[in-house]
Amino acid sequence: MDGSVRSRASRLRVQSVKGDTFRYRQDLLAVEEPMEIRLVLPRMEEPVSISVTMRTPGNDFELAAGFLFTEGILKTPEAIHRITYCTDPEVDGEQRYNIVNVFLRSETDFDPAQLKRHFYTTSSCGVCGKASLEAIRVRNVPKIRADWTVPASVIHGMGERLRAEQDVFEKTGGLHAAGWFTPRGELLAIREDVGRHNAVDKLLGYAFLERKCPLSDGILMVSGRASFEIMQKAAVAGVPMVVAVSAPSSLAREVAREFGITLIGFARDNRFNIYTGTERIQISPPPSGKAVSSKIR
Amino acid sequence: MDGSVRSRASRLRVQSVKGDTFRYRQDLLAVEEPMEIRLVLPRMEEPVSISVTMRTPGNDFELAAGFLFTEGILKTPEAIHRITYCTDPEVDGEQRYNIVNVFLRSETDFDPAQLKRHFYTTSSCGVCGKASLEAIRVRNVPKIRADWTVPASVIHGMGERLRAEQDVFEKTGGLHAAGWFTPRGELLAIREDVGRHNAVDKLLGYAFLERKCPLSDGILMVSGRASFEIMQKAAVAGVPMVVAVSAPSSLAREVAREFGITLIGFARDNRFNIYTGTERIQISPPPSGKAVSSKIR
Repeated sequence: MDGSVRSRASRLRVQSVKGDTFRYRQDLLAVEEPMEIRLVLPRMEEPVSISVTMRTPGNDFELAAGFLFTEGILKTPEAIHRITYCTDPEVDGEQRYNIVNVFLRSETDFDPAQLKRHFYTTSSCGVCGKASLEAIRVRNVPKIRADWTVPASVIHGMGERLRAEQDVFEKTGGLHAAGWFTPRGELLAIREDVGRHNAVDKLLGYAFLERKCPLSDGILMVSGRASFEIMQKAAVAGVPMVVAVSAPSSLAREVAREFGITLIGFARDNRFNIYTGTERIQISPPPSGKAVSSKIR
Repeated sequence: MDGSVRSRASRLRVQSVKGDTFRYRQDLLAVEEPMEIRLVLPRMEEPVSISVTMRTPGNDFELAAGFLFTEGILKTPEAIHRITYCTDPEVDGEQRYNIVNVFLRSETDFDPAQLKRHFYTTSSCGVCGKASLEAIRVRNVPKIRADWTVPASVIHGMGERLRAEQDVFEKTGGLHAAGWFTPRGELLAIREDVGRHNAVDKLLGYAFLERKCPLSDGILMVSGRASFEIMQKAAVAGVPMVVAVSAPSSLAREVAREFGITLIGFARDNRFNIYTGTERIQISPPPSGKAVSSKIR
């Protein structure tokens, strides 16, 4: 059932203030609840708690699978035997839907030492941007090769398309979205969450479980900024292009450059910036031929 | 020196696309780099690695202190003997500024068992919103009592004031900000970061190190949304009022209600919503006396 029956928005009465007067009105808040991801190995007594994340209920199994995949803990969907909510009779009703058990087929599909390596940048591998890139590289993430191109018009159309499908955001203003587009600009799937990384994990978890990864003809759009974490997940899923509505960070661009991902930021109002990987975008210099603004000479 | 000498924005050339033509122009990206926080206890051989966070360099010592304080690991600034960057000769130059050592005065100031309790919501204490609130309560966070009030005009003026001081955001569009205001609307301090929680930790860490906590006459403003995590940090620091430019989550409101914090959201364009703690805001019903919109009867 994957939690989609649970409410993603909660209704309440607020005082809406304009100037110094108020009215009462109904408002909807995006729901935020903790979710624990547990791994269960064959012949193991106790499940291993992998992480607790604050998320918006819904698509919980995709979130669990996506997290395990994009953090490099699971390599293939075949490693997963089944995914369930907690069935422990000692855990009471509502809480069960906040604990997701991922049952693996074989002990060999999970290496606890690897887990530690992925969650912590220890002193031995260094603490700097370069070491962070190295931490992705050691997961055998290949450089992305995709020779398709998209016209600029496809990029321009994506933001509106994503926004139109963000049903919970429309009501609450409180959710991030991640969308999976084709190079022709068709929106194949969208996921929402209070956490930006969770929205991406839900979307990539869906693709992972559907055996669609690597997403070699996919474009990932995120409603906010592009951080290191988002780009790391895109690299693991083999996404050749990431489009962010807002700004990328310095390290997001480094990951994009290192792994061959086209990175686009500030994609709104018929404009966008290309930070790296321009060969996949069909654009022309302005008619005057003056592609370099005089300001920066 | 606290890292403020390091660059918070990095310059690069981008292709700026409008329609289907481009120009090259200079752009600035917010810098994102990992930072490890380590605790060093007297007579201890090895420091304890507490966390690695992706942050924008600058105010690193405040970030470390703020994180340790708002996560309930340290109770008082007196527990800290000194804070330094890594001085390990085996760690090379640039990386040293990504490792912050917090030296404690006494072993009794740190309880490793507590650390585990705070970072993980284990099955014994439950995984749900209620249990998340309980996890704050066990840190002996008292209910906030503050009987001052502010006119609505103070809230209306805060967003513009914060934005005007966000120097790196202005250039990159990529940073969150947290501001500390008085009930008269004076901005006492502002901190910026690629991570919203880091901006809050830097600000509250500054207040903590300056012995200003609990911030019983402080208003915390955040440039984005108000999540559980932000409200938890505010509760620990004793902040009676949190103002968010964007939406709060359901659990953020629960924390606010539980700990007596006034929570305001969507504070922009001369409007805001009060989610809880209305007694601290000076507002009136509209002149008609019809405070309840007919839509929701």
